Amino acid sequence: MSRINHQVRLAARPVGQPRPTDWEHVEEPVGEPGEGELLVQVLYLSIDPAMRGWMNAGRSYIPPVEIGEVMRAGAVGRVIASRHPGFAVGDHVSGTFGVQEYCLSNGRGVTKVDPALAPLPTYLGTLGMTGLTAYFGLLDVGRPQPGQTVVVSGAAGAVGSVVGQIAKILGCRVVGIAGGERKCRLVVEEFGFDAAIDYQAEDVRKALREHAPDGVDVYFDNVGGDILDAVLVRLAHGARVVICGAVSQYNNTEPVKGPSNYMSLLVNRATMTGMVVFDYADRYPEGIAELAEWRAAGRLRSIEDVVSGGVAAFPETLLRLFRGENLGKLVLKVGGE
Amino acid sequence: MSRINHQVRLAARPVGQPRPTDWEHVEEPVGEPGEGELLVQVLYLSIDPAMRGWMNAGRSYIPPVEIGEVMRAGAVGRVIASRHPGFAVGDHVSGTFGVQEYCLSNGRGVTKVDPALAPLPTYLGTLGMTGLTAYFGLLDVGRPQPGQTVVVSGAAGAVGSVVGQIAKILGCRVVGIAGGERKCRLVVEEFGFDAAIDYQAEDVRKALREHAPDGVDVYFDNVGGDILDAVLVRLAHGARVVICGAVSQYNNTEPVKGPSNYMSLLVNRATMTGMVVFDYADRYPEGIAELAEWRAAGRLRSIEDVVSGGVAAFPETLLRLFRGENLGKLVLKVGGE
Repeated sequence: MSRINHQVRLAARPVGQPRPTDWEHVEEPVGEPGEGELLVQVLYLSIDPAMRGWMNAGRSYIPPVEIGEVMRAGAVGRVIASRHPGFAVGDHVSGTFGVQEYCLSNGRGVTKVDPALAPLPTYLGTLGMTGLTAYFGLLDVGRPQPGQTVVVSGAAGAVGSVVGQIAKILGCRVVGIAGGERKCRLVVEEFGFDAAIDYQAEDVRKALREHAPDGVDVYFDNVGGDILDAVLVRLAHGARVVICGAVSQYNNTEPVKGPSNYMSLLVNRATMTGMVVFDYADRYPEGIAELAEWRAAGRLRSIEDVVSGGVAAFPETLLRLFRGENLGKLVLKVGGE
Repeated sequence: MSRINHQVRLAARPVGQPRPTDWEHVEEPVGEPGEGELLVQVLYLSIDPAMRGWMNAGRSYIPPVEIGEVMRAGAVGRVIASRHPGFAVGDHVSGTFGVQEYCLSNGRGVTKVDPALAPLPTYLGTLGMTGLTAYFGLLDVGRPQPGQTVVVSGAAGAVGSVVGQIAKILGCRVVGIAGGERKCRLVVEEFGFDAAIDYQAEDVRKALREHAPDGVDVYFDNVGGDILDAVLVRLAHGARVVICGAVSQYNNTEPVKGPSNYMSLLVNRATMTGMVVFDYADRYPEGIAELAEWRAAGRLRSIEDVVSGGVAAFPETLLRLFRGENLGKLVLKVGGE
């Protein structure tokens, strides 16, 4: 075996938006699996806003990626060598394999996926961490009741589009916030939201008055910043705000813009709660089963925005997220099948 | 009866800190109670940070005080005439009687208090809305467990001092944040907190690292602004932040400073919840009973900062709150007994 593993490693901690010099492109020979290990050829990488946070030093919900380490990334791949009893050559698997073409793994956190059931990129989206984030964030933290109004930001994105569709399945009125006419059309026509607000063209506060006249019972926030502030003003009594992300703030060089209107929590006896999907690890099977059922029944559409170019294209692909260019789950194709 | 009722009415909606011209001092003859009414001579007025919010136009947790209306205020007084079957002349009562010397009431929201059990100003403090705010905010929203760390801002104030003492009764480690050495000494020596942080002299973030080394499990916030931001950084996993007030922000003419570090809610899977005591109205008797029991047992000290000067002194007395000059519950003495 004389394969070469192309990797993208973190070279420097970015200030603001990551620059090309924050990355190091490395080639190294692919190793052989030792006893209990498997070798995975990476096929698709999950590109997530959370990656920006992992690049920062300091305490967060998981340790930062260290300088010189392969950039952390969720991925799906194929087992091409195994000395692990649980995995055989040819198995398709998902796990945190990193931004590289091959990954040696001890099998921890690796799960088999079935390419006959859904396309592989879907296991990074609706049937992966993305779908699970939407599922547990909405059901466990947001706790919407039928007939209530659910508002989702980043509505055309990976998590947001699933949140809105689940809320519709639950019988809620669902309003999405997204940037640009194309995304807003997608949110309504493809994902079946009741309404979409284009934050680039509309005054979000005013639009919410129209689309959520009785107030917002659940707000699932992926973006932070001014949109969070606009929704806070429109909370209904007893509302739940789910803090899932703050993509508008991740590349800030100035301090994060805190929500000026947070006292609306008091006025409306509302709650703002942070959620991280990893806390629900022991309930992933339950979540995946229900998501897969909805998907099979045609009630949950998934759109993956699959970009080609291999690991070399990773730095540029990540920036697409922050420019809001992706529709649905952004995935980078790495290896050929 | 030719008594004159001196009143303070709202003359204009303040911009920033209330000015003398925002008030109108009015004299009018005291009316006679009609059928089902009682006439109360006001003895003590409760001076609260929330008053500033009531002076603003617009939707909040209760309607604003209208221009020309008597300023809303909690008070205790004595019944001096009654055609209400539930109240007799000589009864002492508490209710929202407003900034005036006499109040005609239909009895709704009026409760009898016993001056033999506690001094009258205490019924505006520990055994009144203040104590109930601390009680339900801490127990129902903060939900501290024995051994956990509870941090309270405005710790020498009316609500904060009660919150900290209840947390001590529950077996928590309690850290107070207050302004100035005198208040900090009071917090530790009089109210029995484990530690106090002087935000005027210390770096709150650093001091919390020392006094809450395992993080903050419950933060009871009365002040907002930079102190809220400093505590957010030190939250423990699963922390509860109780939003009770934001006295640092009430007189802002610029937008409220939102908590920049709110993403700590995500990192620590924490919750920030607003509370308003009025929601617990049907449980007031339960709260008062337990507070009175603790007080009788000497486990709950109350300090009332009673200012004289009558209703004419109201505008200036309110400003004392925002200058942080009061120790414990600020009360304005109105009528003589």
